Amino acid sequence: MKKENDFETNEDILKRVYQIIDDISHQIENMHPPTFTTKVRGQSNVFFDEKQGLLQLGDKQTKRKFLNLGHARKFMQTSLILDRCYEYLKRNKTASIREIYYELKHAIANTKENTFDGQQESNEVIVDVEHAINSIREKLNLQAEPKGSLYGNIVLKDMMHDQDEFNCSNLGRGGWSIMSRIEPEEIKIESVDADFLLVVETSAMYNRLIEERYPKQNKAILVSTSGQAARGTRRLIHRLHTEQNLPVVVFTDGDPYGWYIYSVIKQGSMALAAHSKFLSVPDAKYVGMTLKDVETYGLKSVTEPLKEGGIKRAKEMMEYPWFKPKEWQEELKTAITKKIRIEQQALANKSLEFVAEKYLPEKIANEDFLP
Amino acid sequence: MKKENDFETNEDILKRVYQIIDDISHQIENMHPPTFTTKVRGQSNVFFDEKQGLLQLGDKQTKRKFLNLGHARKFMQTSLILDRCYEYLKRNKTASIREIYYELKHAIANTKENTFDGQQESNEVIVDVEHAINSIREKLNLQAEPKGSLYGNIVLKDMMHDQDEFNCSNLGRGGWSIMSRIEPEEIKIESVDADFLLVVETSAMYNRLIEERYPKQNKAILVSTSGQAARGTRRLIHRLHTEQNLPVVVFTDGDPYGWYIYSVIKQGSMALAAHSKFLSVPDAKYVGMTLKDVETYGLKSVTEPLKEGGIKRAKEMMEYPWFKPKEWQEELKTAITKKIRIEQQALANKSLEFVAEKYLPEKIANEDFLP
Repeated sequence: MKKENDFETNEDILKRVYQIIDDISHQIENMHPPTFTTKVRGQSNVFFDEKQGLLQLGDKQTKRKFLNLGHARKFMQTSLILDRCYEYLKRNKTASIREIYYELKHAIANTKENTFDGQQESNEVIVDVEHAINSIREKLNLQAEPKGSLYGNIVLKDMMHDQDEFNCSNLGRGGWSIMSRIEPEEIKIESVDADFLLVVETSAMYNRLIEERYPKQNKAILVSTSGQAARGTRRLIHRLHTEQNLPVVVFTDGDPYGWYIYSVIKQGSMALAAHSKFLSVPDAKYVGMTLKDVETYGLKSVTEPLKEGGIKRAKEMMEYPWFKPKEWQEELKTAITKKIRIEQQALANKSLEFVAEKYLPEKIANEDFLP
Repeated sequence: MKKENDFETNEDILKRVYQIIDDISHQIENMHPPTFTTKVRGQSNVFFDEKQGLLQLGDKQTKRKFLNLGHARKFMQTSLILDRCYEYLKRNKTASIREIYYELKHAIANTKENTFDGQQESNEVIVDVEHAINSIREKLNLQAEPKGSLYGNIVLKDMMHDQDEFNCSNLGRGGWSIMSRIEPEEIKIESVDADFLLVVETSAMYNRLIEERYPKQNKAILVSTSGQAARGTRRLIHRLHTEQNLPVVVFTDGDPYGWYIYSVIKQGSMALAAHSKFLSVPDAKYVGMTLKDVETYGLKSVTEPLKEGGIKRAKEMMEYPWFKPKEWQEELKTAITKKIRIEQQALANKSLEFVAEKYLPEKIANEDFLP
């Protein structure tokens, strides 16, 4: 892992944005056609880096030319976004990707053209810009909807908000709601007293484990993703792992969607391949649910049918290099042939306490993990 | 408002559940056919109480008879749910509505029948039971997914979790994530230092206002609903209003969906008409967005088209008694004829700071509200 990337400062990013703007103005001054360079995304430029255990983006680049009729509109939009992000960074402001769209949307003087027709257009340009500066949009002070919660003996400090300091085990049972942007310059991890980080898929399971005092009794930090992990949540998991050396254990529903949530936390995703180094945890381990658990713990009566879409997804996932280990191939095959899935909460069929008192402690103590 | 209902204790509810179970066992002992009584829900039993300014459920009751073949299955399910909730209350445990389903799901001995086929069945019985005890499911220690955040100078205490005490203005910019159950016995409001409560629809607007220090500069408590307000969020708003006498001001997108979010906070909803006394705030006021704002603040270029579904919704809402005030009729008519909507975040078109420095302070100082 290139840990140094985690500590890019506001100043570093400001310089890179400035550099791009400066290059364009030099081109104009010297009567050269202005160009803007970013990276090619998508399957043609994504590869699975076996050694590092993560998805990566290749080096292919693409140039947008202002004097190309097909590029001119996007070039104009890129300049607007660059200018605005530069201002945010200068002024220490943050904005949602919807706000930047509304801020920049206007009719262009003496034309019937709008700068942006719909947020889809500004979103695409933001992706161009984050790839051009070789970083993530959060470093440009942009943010999306927050999602996910954090609980446990960890002290955080919000450097942008009166240096607020709080311990995430003293906020009641709800814990702390993870912000959309968790950059080290703004949210400092002051101290952690825990043996590992348990990431759970559903907020109901998160509530269950807190009510059972699982984190306190097992020295665990708990994160709930509420489905697919948001960028801020992935960033926090990544930081807790790299900065604090916390082992990461993931606990999702036993179905292709849950397993894919795990794989995104571990190896990254196709769409954000360039950002794996900021977001992934190749050392993460998977504790459950598995379809093997259905046999081991006698949970047949509380499985649910796996529908067409899930079976199709399992077949696709069997082909991904990072699902090639035989344990995963077996799970996926069982899902396809038995057409069943098992939810985390189905463990309540044993008793409400079962997951906290038996299932997790035993599996974790025995390192009964999937890779 | 019947404030006394807010302070039903765990003991009170336990007694009511016990009473129902006790009645059924007496019927059985005396060889009478067992019955279970709950309230009729749905339009036929819902009315708008003009005087109190909220939706209410009428007195119509319905009886389920164990010896009626059409009722027997539901009767069995009701007994299971009653028994389990009684146990939760006794043991001070809480459970999600999905967990109680999984806990109780099993094959009935010597038959091919399951106790429950799908969570829909247990959910329906939970609604029966909460209406039978004339209270809300939260009092039965049941909970759903949490949603919504709280920020501001308010000290909460979680009585069920080491008496954790925390001030919701010192938790960083994210604030506190509102729990699914906010019952007074468990979450105590220790103190509040604020002049009013501002409820906002989107979490992006919530972030904006915190970044602009709006709550601190205006002595406001801030709640974000993230769309339609969850029960826990409505309960908290209701409690802040009734226990702390905080005026409630609501700020949503300017479209039928946003206005309906407001009306649910104020008058309650059809589906939860029996619970209005626990959840609504008839004194709430609406600050925006309105379609009048589009003219006043010159926001035409950042309106969005209102689609078919939204226009249909506006037409329905024009018929609701609580949307009869002329200000609302005008807004709804404008939406229908101009076919436009305006989002909260569209105010960013003026500047990021505009909403916090001008729009809200001016409208609130001038009491430029809709009823």
